[in-house]
Amino acid sequence: MSIQTMQAAVLHGVHDLRVDEVPAPGAPAANEARIQINKVGICGSDVHYWEHGRIGDFVVREPMILGHECAGTVVEVGAGVTHLQAGDRVAIEPGVPRLSNTISHYYMKRGEYNLCPDIFFFATPPDHGAFCNYVNHPADFCFKLPDNVSLEVGALIEPMSTGIYASRVAPITMGDTVVITGAGPIGLVNVLTAKAAGAAQVIISDVVPERLQVALEVGASHVVQGDADELKETARALTNGRGADVCIECAGHPSALNACIAAARPGATVVLIGMPPGDTATININDMIVREIKLRPIFRYNNTFPTGVDLLASGRVDLTPLISKRFQLSEVPQAFEYVVENRATCVKAVVDVG
Amino acid sequence: MSIQTMQAAVLHGVHDLRVDEVPAPGAPAANEARIQINKVGICGSDVHYWEHGRIGDFVVREPMILGHECAGTVVEVGAGVTHLQAGDRVAIEPGVPRLSNTISHYYMKRGEYNLCPDIFFFATPPDHGAFCNYVNHPADFCFKLPDNVSLEVGALIEPMSTGIYASRVAPITMGDTVVITGAGPIGLVNVLTAKAAGAAQVIISDVVPERLQVALEVGASHVVQGDADELKETARALTNGRGADVCIECAGHPSALNACIAAARPGATVVLIGMPPGDTATININDMIVREIKLRPIFRYNNTFPTGVDLLASGRVDLTPLISKRFQLSEVPQAFEYVVENRATCVKAVVDVG
Amino acid sequence: MSIQTMQAAVLHGVHDLRVDEVPAPGAPAANEARIQINKVGICGSDVHYWEHGRIGDFVVREPMILGHECAGTVVEVGAGVTHLQAGDRVAIEPGVPRLSNTISHYYMKRGEYNLCPDIFFFATPPDHGAFCNYVNHPADFCFKLPDNVSLEVGALIEPMSTGIYASRVAPITMGDTVVITGAGPIGLVNVLTAKAAGAAQVIISDVVPERLQVALEVGASHVVQGDADELKETARALTNGRGADVCIECAGHPSALNACIAAARPGATVVLIGMPPGDTATININDMIVREIKLRPIFRYNNTFPTGVDLLASGRVDLTPLISKRFQLSEVPQAFEYVVENRATCVKAVVDVG
Amino acid sequence: MSIQTMQAAVLHGVHDLRVDEVPAPGAPAANEARIQINKVGICGSDVHYWEHGRIGDFVVREPMILGHECAGTVVEVGAGVTHLQAGDRVAIEPGVPRLSNTISHYYMKRGEYNLCPDIFFFATPPDHGAFCNYVNHPADFCFKLPDNVSLEVGALIEPMSTGIYASRVAPITMGDTVVITGAGPIGLVNVLTAKAAGAAQVIISDVVPERLQVALEVGASHVVQGDADELKETARALTNGRGADVCIECAGHPSALNACIAAARPGATVVLIGMPPGDTATININDMIVREIKLRPIFRYNNTFPTGVDLLASGRVDLTPLISKRFQLSEVPQAFEYVVENRATCVKAVVDVG
Repeated sequence: MSIQTMQAAVLHGVHDLRVDEVPAPGAPAANEARIQINKVGICGSDVHYWEHGRIGDFVVREPMILGHECAGTVVEVGAGVTHLQAGDRVAIEPGVPRLSNTISHYYMKRGEYNLCPDIFFFATPPDHGAFCNYVNHPADFCFKLPDNVSLEVGALIEPMSTGIYASRVAPITMGDTVVITGAGPIGLVNVLTAKAAGAAQVIISDVVPERLQVALEVGASHVVQGDADELKETARALTNGRGADVCIECAGHPSALNACIAAARPGATVVLIGMPPGDTATININDMIVREIKLRPIFRYNNTFPTGVDLLASGRVDLTPLISKRFQLSEVPQAFEYVVENRATCVKAVVDVG
Repeated sequence: MSIQTMQAAVLHGVHDLRVDEVPAPGAPAANEARIQINKVGICGSDVHYWEHGRIGDFVVREPMILGHECAGTVVEVGAGVTHLQAGDRVAIEPGVPRLSNTISHYYMKRGEYNLCPDIFFFATPPDHGAFCNYVNHPADFCFKLPDNVSLEVGALIEPMSTGIYASRVAPITMGDTVVITGAGPIGLVNVLTAKAAGAAQVIISDVVPERLQVALEVGASHVVQGDADELKETARALTNGRGADVCIECAGHPSALNACIAAARPGATVVLIGMPPGDTATININDMIVREIKLRPIFRYNNTFPTGVDLLASGRVDLTPLISKRFQLSEVPQAFEYVVENRATCVKAVVDVG
Repeated sequence: MSIQTMQAAVLHGVHDLRVDEVPAPGAPAANEARIQINKVGICGSDVHYWEHGRIGDFVVREPMILGHECAGTVVEVGAGVTHLQAGDRVAIEPGVPRLSNTISHYYMKRGEYNLCPDIFFFATPPDHGAFCNYVNHPADFCFKLPDNVSLEVGALIEPMSTGIYASRVAPITMGDTVVITGAGPIGLVNVLTAKAAGAAQVIISDVVPERLQVALEVGASHVVQGDADELKETARALTNGRGADVCIECAGHPSALNACIAAARPGATVVLIGMPPGDTATININDMIVREIKLRPIFRYNNTFPTGVDLLASGRVDLTPLISKRFQLSEVPQAFEYVVENRATCVKAVVDVG
Repeated sequence: MSIQTMQAAVLHGVHDLRVDEVPAPGAPAANEARIQINKVGICGSDVHYWEHGRIGDFVVREPMILGHECAGTVVEVGAGVTHLQAGDRVAIEPGVPRLSNTISHYYMKRGEYNLCPDIFFFATPPDHGAFCNYVNHPADFCFKLPDNVSLEVGALIEPMSTGIYASRVAPITMGDTVVITGAGPIGLVNVLTAKAAGAAQVIISDVVPERLQVALEVGASHVVQGDADELKETARALTNGRGADVCIECAGHPSALNACIAAARPGATVVLIGMPPGDTATININDMIVREIKLRPIFRYNNTFPTGVDLLASGRVDLTPLISKRFQLSEVPQAFEYVVENRATCVKAVVDVG
């Protein structure tokens, strides 16, 4: 099989996203698999690159294929790949350490490979992403989906990974009361994973009532529309006055981070996922000290895909309710417009690549 | 209120259990609550004392009131008790450290109070239990039940505690495959708590088909009737060949412990709840070493009651299906006969004290 | 024995510290010991109350005896105390939960008793401290000193406790490179405890050269005079470019906290001991997220005294080099003047009470 | 540089160890380094293969080069290796996962690569070892030694790794009292690493007085000659009656394992390094349950070499006192005879390969 070109949604500049004919990858190298991409979710970071051309220090300087929430079908495997074969349906973990130096070796071997400074990551400049027909990818970062898991939800193991990782590092334990700030896609997957991890109560806050409605539908036990004091009081009312066992900040605002600190019980952990605009944040440090509130930022995730497959296969988590809208690969530019115009109601848009 | 005597189910010797008129406790001391007992479950250890007069080094030398799975209603509180008042419905944690020496202080302060060598425990010689109308108990070991939790299931927070504690120390994490050996009451509460803690698959083994049927009803995903090889193969088939992430031995037989070791994946933990007959056990130590299987025995539990209340109140766990039979306090001797004669089908008998 | 009055160093207002004749405590209650105080260290918090009349929300409204770093001799024990007897030399843990409500019960039972909201603490308003001849104290918060540990260093188990606790929660593990910001008494005890916990390299920064000299004398491997960039470069140079495994902020300045964040390797923990002035701090949150730097504030400590006794008795830690100056109880007001006037060179002043 | 053959100490059968001329490895592949071996320690497992031709299920079926405790000098690097260059002195980690299937991927990515079922390991059949002049080895398993660390002690990072790993997983924390059973080379490195990890007291037992003498010389605080009751009493006497915080079994006898269980305090961990003869062991399971003694077997180690380098470079650990005897490569057969004949006094023999 020799495929020379393929379609890809390429970001050429701010608000300049085009579906181009681009060269297809060649035969997979040793330990790689060639994957025909079937489904790709649109992530807030894809949209952010489209709107701003950068995220923090990551700047799009050359045309870049977007997309990193993806699943597909193996079409060919390179030398040394024994656990996959053509026809296998797989979820693809988008971040792979390049292992080019001792710092990267150090983190890879400790199981903290998301901290490798030389990590490759789909659609993070200068690395191309997955809104295209084919990728070659290290086979050990491709996870076979069982028959009862669709490619569409398989693609969403990637965003669910932030929730799996947040729940693990917090950690959320059986019976916990969990506060989540921000009911966008990341906040909502955290509702699902917090409950899967044993949370007895999940309180979520946002300023947009439509999002809170979705939060209730996917299992939040309580919603709070935007007020930090109400969030704190709700958490205390549910815990004999103590406060939340775990808080997860997904809104990307310092005020939400401080709302988490206030809602947390003494000794609790605030997991920080949402990246605030700017390099610094002013936080209520005194309250953190006298009540020993721990701050645990997370950057992407590690070792979440096997868990994600297990949660979907066993039926413990159903991601289908998060899918608000579907598009074709040729419609990706319009899809981005749609997502931005419907932020309040469009949780997750998924592109059917083919 | 001055109550001089009360009814109590007193063990006088092997197979000699009588409902006697005994002195009621007087006014509660400082930091104590006087509780009218309403519901008490019959535990395997109660039955074991009745059949054998001892459990290991704990020997019944004087008549002893049995029963330690209990809930009741506060009738009076001693000086210094501010968090309870008459009329409160409470689950009672039966083990309370006496704090008589530095070893006991050491474990109490570290939160491992179940390891205090001087712990008081209901119905463990020489301490009386709760098959009676009134007990005085340290108020901080009495946990208020919310309106939506019945006294009957509140009494069963005690046996559920073994499952909560096993899940916590293992620990069971989201997506795990868990093996449980022994489908008696302890094995079955562990099915419920393993699922509440996030297990994606729970495999349980026993030799009695009726018990396995109950296990399926309360949520086990797979059952194995007694064969260690089949248990191991089932665990591997569900985990891409790795084996179970956590195994929990509840059968009290060395063969079940070795079946757990075999079913465990490399690096897994085998939690040991079931106490084998005799002081020693012959275990497959070589397999434990080359695959780094950890053995984590547990003795009772600590800090489980708040979690138990939260799990019941939130509806994450329903203990009602475990209740097979109900008796009155006057029927306790017959209840013990019934439990022994119906081991295969009677999961949990509960006594309605009044 | 009936002693009616005693001497005590009482803070009457800002810069108004007097040695008064005050009533002595009566006979010890049940579970208490009556201790003749022998040695008390002067802590920065004592000095802060003397200079400002408050620390954050803790305001001195009534005359209050200062002092909380203390050791003494048992003179009498109350009912139920079996592990102490008259003549025993003890270090005294100054914080004791009052256990007046369910929140306090919750933290006490989990071993996190420093988080009990109703904790009693020497010399924290409104609780009196230990610059006096006698205190009655719960016997399980009095720790017997072996013969080879002097009362003087026994008194300093209290400040060493912040280091023991910081090392434990970080955690510092064998071979770690540790950064400490601030070379006051707390920073210096952290040098000692970091090394006792296995640190291979300890880098400490301060603006005062005299303090850095002491740091070298007690075992720091590298010192940096005040520059955040140099601190970061030093940490990286010692770790193949990674950065420090653990950072411990003891200076109480947001700039020092940000210096810790910069010096930390990806995935490291910054332990926060120093309380910055004001309620908030502006921190480099983006750098914390993309490198997953965890922030772990600590408030006092728990379960450190047995460890402190073991470290001193075994000779692993020697606190003697930290003692710069000694005073008598009658000289306490002058001692406070001395400490303030000699901040650069006076690490720890100890009062010989008698 | 083209070297066709080299010298190697090859095990041809039981008691048949010969220094042969064998083919030298060719040019290093991508990501490999070609190392000239300089120093190799003789391990008990090497001797065991020589005496028995097997260790458990690992059977020597073809002639095999022995030796896995090694350090050497880089002579050439393959494509993609940037952190090493010719002339670098390196310690070599002998176990490298082959990553041939999903189980191996699973453990590698979690940082538990010693559990990969397809791991390559020097001198474990069918993999050749390092008693030879040259090996090609994955460059990320070669750790550069700083100037102040000799190749000779660099070679011993391998046996020290069992101690580093045991201390980490136990974990040993500052101030702990540690019991070690067996004062052979593994027991003795555990004395060193337990102290480096913060142990305040290290008690070691053996039946051979000469070994106990060495134990005292390298830092054990107490020695016990062989009696389990005395070991238990010694541990309790040093811990206010509690027992040891951590026990490490290095003797390879079930009786030593039971001695560890008896000496452990409630809640302690017994780390199991010594592999008993036979597949099973009879252990005091009842005592383990009622006192919650955890059993933590270890199989080799992971992520220990960076720590080992740091401990040696900083001077926290000195391995030199463990080296009892030195040999040349041509003398390896005699060296094995010597080691067996001088078990009581020869701790570690090191071969100077060239």
